[in-house]
Amino acid sequence: MDRDQRRATPAIADEQDEIDDAVKENAEFQGALKRRGITNLSTIVCGGSSAGYFGTAEEQGRRLLLITCQDVRGSLEAAGRTIEGLTALWDVNEKKVLRVRDTGVVPVPQTDQYYDVASVGVLRQMAPLSVQQPMGPDFRLDGQSVSWQKWNFHFRIDRRVGLIISNVGYQDGERLRSILYEGSLSEMFSPYMDPSEWWSESTFLDLGEHSDAFSSSLEPGEDCPENAVYFDQIYADGKATPNLKPRAACLFEQPAGYMAWRHDGAEGAIESRKMRELVLRTIAKANNYDFVSDWIFQQNGTIRVRVGATGFDLVKAVKSRTAAEDADGQDGMYGRFIAENTVGVNHDHFFSFRLDFDVDGTANSFVRDKLHVKRLPPDRLRKSLWVAEPETVKTEEQAKVQMSMKEPEIWRVVNPNVKSPLGYPVGYSVMGEGNAMSLMVPEDYPQKRAGFTDYQVWVTPYRENERYAAGDYPTQSQGGDGLPQWTKANRPIEDTDIVLWYTVGFHHVPQAEDWPVMPILWHEFDLVPVNFFAHNPALDLPK
Amino acid sequence: MDRDQRRATPAIADEQDEIDDAVKENAEFQGALKRRGITNLSTIVCGGSSAGYFGTAEEQGRRLLLITCQDVRGSLEAAGRTIEGLTALWDVNEKKVLRVRDTGVVPVPQTDQYYDVASVGVLRQMAPLSVQQPMGPDFRLDGQSVSWQKWNFHFRIDRRVGLIISNVGYQDGERLRSILYEGSLSEMFSPYMDPSEWWSESTFLDLGEHSDAFSSSLEPGEDCPENAVYFDQIYADGKATPNLKPRAACLFEQPAGYMAWRHDGAEGAIESRKMRELVLRTIAKANNYDFVSDWIFQQNGTIRVRVGATGFDLVKAVKSRTAAEDADGQDGMYGRFIAENTVGVNHDHFFSFRLDFDVDGTANSFVRDKLHVKRLPPDRLRKSLWVAEPETVKTEEQAKVQMSMKEPEIWRVVNPNVKSPLGYPVGYSVMGEGNAMSLMVPEDYPQKRAGFTDYQVWVTPYRENERYAAGDYPTQSQGGDGLPQWTKANRPIEDTDIVLWYTVGFHHVPQAEDWPVMPILWHEFDLVPVNFFAHNPALDLPK
Repeated sequence: MDRDQRRATPAIADEQDEIDDAVKENAEFQGALKRRGITNLSTIVCGGSSAGYFGTAEEQGRRLLLITCQDVRGSLEAAGRTIEGLTALWDVNEKKVLRVRDTGVVPVPQTDQYYDVASVGVLRQMAPLSVQQPMGPDFRLDGQSVSWQKWNFHFRIDRRVGLIISNVGYQDGERLRSILYEGSLSEMFSPYMDPSEWWSESTFLDLGEHSDAFSSSLEPGEDCPENAVYFDQIYADGKATPNLKPRAACLFEQPAGYMAWRHDGAEGAIESRKMRELVLRTIAKANNYDFVSDWIFQQNGTIRVRVGATGFDLVKAVKSRTAAEDADGQDGMYGRFIAENTVGVNHDHFFSFRLDFDVDGTANSFVRDKLHVKRLPPDRLRKSLWVAEPETVKTEEQAKVQMSMKEPEIWRVVNPNVKSPLGYPVGYSVMGEGNAMSLMVPEDYPQKRAGFTDYQVWVTPYRENERYAAGDYPTQSQGGDGLPQWTKANRPIEDTDIVLWYTVGFHHVPQAEDWPVMPILWHEFDLVPVNFFAHNPALDLPK
Repeated sequence: MDRDQRRATPAIADEQDEIDDAVKENAEFQGALKRRGITNLSTIVCGGSSAGYFGTAEEQGRRLLLITCQDVRGSLEAAGRTIEGLTALWDVNEKKVLRVRDTGVVPVPQTDQYYDVASVGVLRQMAPLSVQQPMGPDFRLDGQSVSWQKWNFHFRIDRRVGLIISNVGYQDGERLRSILYEGSLSEMFSPYMDPSEWWSESTFLDLGEHSDAFSSSLEPGEDCPENAVYFDQIYADGKATPNLKPRAACLFEQPAGYMAWRHDGAEGAIESRKMRELVLRTIAKANNYDFVSDWIFQQNGTIRVRVGATGFDLVKAVKSRTAAEDADGQDGMYGRFIAENTVGVNHDHFFSFRLDFDVDGTANSFVRDKLHVKRLPPDRLRKSLWVAEPETVKTEEQAKVQMSMKEPEIWRVVNPNVKSPLGYPVGYSVMGEGNAMSLMVPEDYPQKRAGFTDYQVWVTPYRENERYAAGDYPTQSQGGDGLPQWTKANRPIEDTDIVLWYTVGFHHVPQAEDWPVMPILWHEFDLVPVNFFAHNPALDLPK
């Protein structure tokens, strides 16, 4: 690589510290603030976010951040008090303001964004409800190695991608069988859908652009239930000084709230077994958003992976007070009013998960069971049905999948060398549920930089240095880094150590209910055993 | 309607009672059993299932069932012991066997299908885990009217569609605001994907074809947790005799297992509020399958509706013992071996829900927020974004939706006459997650009879007699009944009392883990407030 490594370094927290002072000392910026009637700078907070890369001459060889400010006066949350239309372009290495942009004065919204107990006032009453484990938890810990109900795994908290699960195995009779070598988030992509300055450049690759430790400390009893156990995180800051983040992860059992399996039998005999789950939870704070990440181990051999988005929408200050007063519809065209003079801007969230499967060992293959329509002969009463045609994928190019309800398929990672008692290769399936694809045009730089969102599924041969879906340094990636680049070689992926990359996403049109703090919105997928076990692995659950 | 009402009546339970004796007395059928070495008929159990309608002369004016038999000897579950290739066509009204079909002898599989505690033997150990409510539940009951945490609703258990929720309202400050007049399942469709006799005709419209009370009694502590309250069902059998089904529904609170909302604020102050839910559960027994139906009321104003499929796959007896011995692949072509000599046949499940919204009154409209790609001018750095363009739908034809990730949209039922404080019509959104569409060709009779699966969403003006998505009597429907027929009139649906029909489905390729009883598989959708509340309705949750 002939990359300029200095340019390619992600923005680190220490580099933010200099911004606030520098921009406030800039005469042009001060002038723009004065045009807004802001002369007391003590309540003004400024920070930089990735400017992305759009192929301009100015960007070449530079590390740039876009500075925006809020007037936090009278609000718990700075983000509701945005100073709209005013940005400064900051050269991180030169430590100077390159340019101030002022697209016009919009008053700072004066709405409240309070949601703490004291501000809300009267709270609703609830009779106590709690999960009790009088004999203690069922899991055993050896450091951060966990064993619970036939599951075995290790976890660690990475400074960049957060929780990493590793060495996931299942005790199947006498055998401890491997399933996943590693699993974690690999990148996120959050593009905003407003054409104005700053907003159109807000196309964050959250994990790779800002090399902060994203972990948020977990609130006992609120973020995790009464029976949870907590784990601290030790991480290095930008100067390599060790830091402690208390309670960065929690682990707890919970009733699933439903049965593992059930049948009302022929003789009227009902057999039903309630299920419990083990939840490993971390929360990433990505500025305005809080992303709750759960890895849930179930007694039926399934691992549920889910991400919950809460926190609050990024908001834009607008001149109209409400949609009713937005006569030409311009203020609310790219989002919705969620408070007075405040528009929650439309955006997407995409989460790329890196799933390094080791199904009964490292020699794995990727199988796509494609459901094809088959027409039956004209003399038959029934005219059509579907058949599932398994296709063992040979190379990376054939492994790129765009989900489609019209051409449905089931994805399995199998070990072609280990057969089930009934003659099938043992495997695990990735079962996605609701999902979204990026709607931006392919030639758009943000889309090229987040090229991993072109497909929901990619499969690559394992390489130690291929960990991040948008590449190692997406800060000023010129596009195509990560999965698009690696898979250009179209490497063989059959009967070898493979990594499956699954991206789950959603489109978000904000609404009044998101204010002043957003109800959590989950998206998930399951890793489900398919002919991995000889039969239902939860048969032996006690009544 | 000039329909033959006698023909159009669904099959009732009493009509099954005659079948077993009649077919065993049939000489041709006895001969076919003898060819299979079966002479002792005491362990043979026979029953009829809907034969569907395929446009033949034989079907005209008749009510027909297809009879199949199992040899239950030595198994808990008859369904695993199918006598393959032997069916009889039964005229329900004439009470006679019209025809015996024998497509060739396949031995009855000799696998076990035991899953009761005694048979499984050694059960795994678990430390106790329970949900405790020392002060009792938080809900109040008045008969089957429920109030809980600002929610108010009534429920009843219908003989045909099961649970019906009605008069759903939310106490928003001083106002009790209506949301849903009624909500329930309206029909199910379960077509199997094997071309052989009987299997290709197995295209069940479960709710309308068999007019039995599907309710299964709930097992305390297993089907519902320790803190559940139970409700009996009284229903009429085919002779109008009242029957009691004990514990046909349960109601309980549970911890959601996560927070309603959460933010790690600017000053490092974390605010997080754990959430609980109210679950109303029924279980329908549809022969081999158990369908768990949950209506879940959350403290954030969302109603989650979900269906869980458990029980066991319909299985086909085959000559090959395993896939490895299935040399030409014929036995396993239309399903998978899930036990020796036993193939779980591929199939679909579609669940049509009837959602009669009354958002702040009956005058409602259906809005599709279509996410369109918008190109930006060439001189802009950013080239594209998406905008959400709300389209208020005028008539039934425009309201038919096929979900697509490439053309995503958000569906809202709004009251155009009631505006939110920010100027938007108040509304509720139907948010589907994973879903499937039927892959059968349109000219296939089963597809025509289940025409409601052509679209995931339909909207109709409320009519008292339009309750079942595939029509009142789908037993021998000739296709097009229900939603396709009603919507031909293309009636106006704007600013009036409307019903939204949402169908959720999935394709099921069976696997070894489904044997001998299948891990529950959930599919769900949410009814989510969109500008219905002035702000996050769960702000007032206590810490």
